[in-house]
Amino acid sequence: MELLNALEWRYASKKMNGKQVPEEKVERILEAIRLAPSSMGLQPYTVLVIKDPKIKNQILPIANNQQQIVDSSHLLVFAAWDKITVEHVNDYVDLTASTRSITIESLEQFKNILLNISKRPQQENYEWAARQTYIAFATAIAAAAEERVDATPMEGFNNAALDELLGLKAKGLKSITLLPLGYRDSENDWLAKFPKLRRQKEDLFIIK
Amino acid sequence: MELLNALEWRYASKKMNGKQVPEEKVERILEAIRLAPSSMGLQPYTVLVIKDPKIKNQILPIANNQQQIVDSSHLLVFAAWDKITVEHVNDYVDLTASTRSITIESLEQFKNILLNISKRPQQENYEWAARQTYIAFATAIAAAAEERVDATPMEGFNNAALDELLGLKAKGLKSITLLPLGYRDSENDWLAKFPKLRRQKEDLFIIK
Repeated sequence: MELLNALEWRYASKKMNGKQVPEEKVERILEAIRLAPSSMGLQPYTVLVIKDPKIKNQILPIANNQQQIVDSSHLLVFAAWDKITVEHVNDYVDLTASTRSITIESLEQFKNILLNISKRPQQENYEWAARQTYIAFATAIAAAAEERVDATPMEGFNNAALDELLGLKAKGLKSITLLPLGYRDSENDWLAKFPKLRRQKEDLFIIK
Repeated sequence: MELLNALEWRYASKKMNGKQVPEEKVERILEAIRLAPSSMGLQPYTVLVIKDPKIKNQILPIANNQQQIVDSSHLLVFAAWDKITVEHVNDYVDLTASTRSITIESLEQFKNILLNISKRPQQENYEWAARQTYIAFATAIAAAAEERVDATPMEGFNNAALDELLGLKAKGLKSITLLPLGYRDSENDWLAKFPKLRRQKEDLFIIK
């Protein structure tokens, strides 16, 4: 399994060297994100791909001055839908019908399930969307590792300030996680020299 | 990237054929879960691996009678820590020191950060642990696909009833997701015949 080799290779780089990741590698990482599964297949998120150094510089203080933000080649921002709307449902039912070459009418039962989901409390749906976003996020981490591109998963930043900077609220989005993509600076990365740190199998799994 | 082929191949099988997945494949999927990243490296979850048909039969009604529960070879239950305790912190600091061959004393700053996290409201820490669990869950889905093992991600079940059945509360755990592992019954799976359904790149990404 190539994924196992990739997971052994990867770690959360604390210092990147500023080198660019070739666009074809980034494209494959984005395609993996696009193919990631989600509950009901709804993909309730948008991923921003930030190449512009000016924007990265603006994000730096919002993300506790973690230098990988500016030393990365591409900075991915994973943002979840802040609510599930009737428009989201209609768009998804349309996409389902066209992808499967079936009528919208034949999807009435499916549509009603989605409409009932959209009526749940907004906070509940946002938390649900955020969890789906983590599936896309994890898939991106795995994909980057298979491309031998370093990626540093980040949760620690000022979400409200980032949403403001990137105009996410107007798009119905809330930032969830960051993923700088780039290359490790092994000599200057304090974490690069340590072996992987994981609980042992016996502590992580219960077999029944 | 092998992962892209695997993601193209996979789908959420709606009907499995009951065949067993070889243990060496399951072992590699579990190892991928073990290597999955998590915030602070804390891995705030346990994964139950259920082979016993009797237990699967008990879970079936709890999971809306989704037949993949009993037609799977191995049923994975992803369960998050319901709180972050001082014991969790101590265990993790011990593991960090032994893995890195450094003293516990040298990790005092790290330990204090973790202790501060443990003092946050329990619900906040539980939601955080649940999100980390989704990273492990997504990694398992990717790993199964690379092994050409079918896996059906499930959120729709009675969490409280499953926690009761598996005695999770006493272990400080709450069930989050299910992942039956097995093989698709292509002839009898209504979903097997449809092309993959995903939003187009232009709808999913914003490039800046």
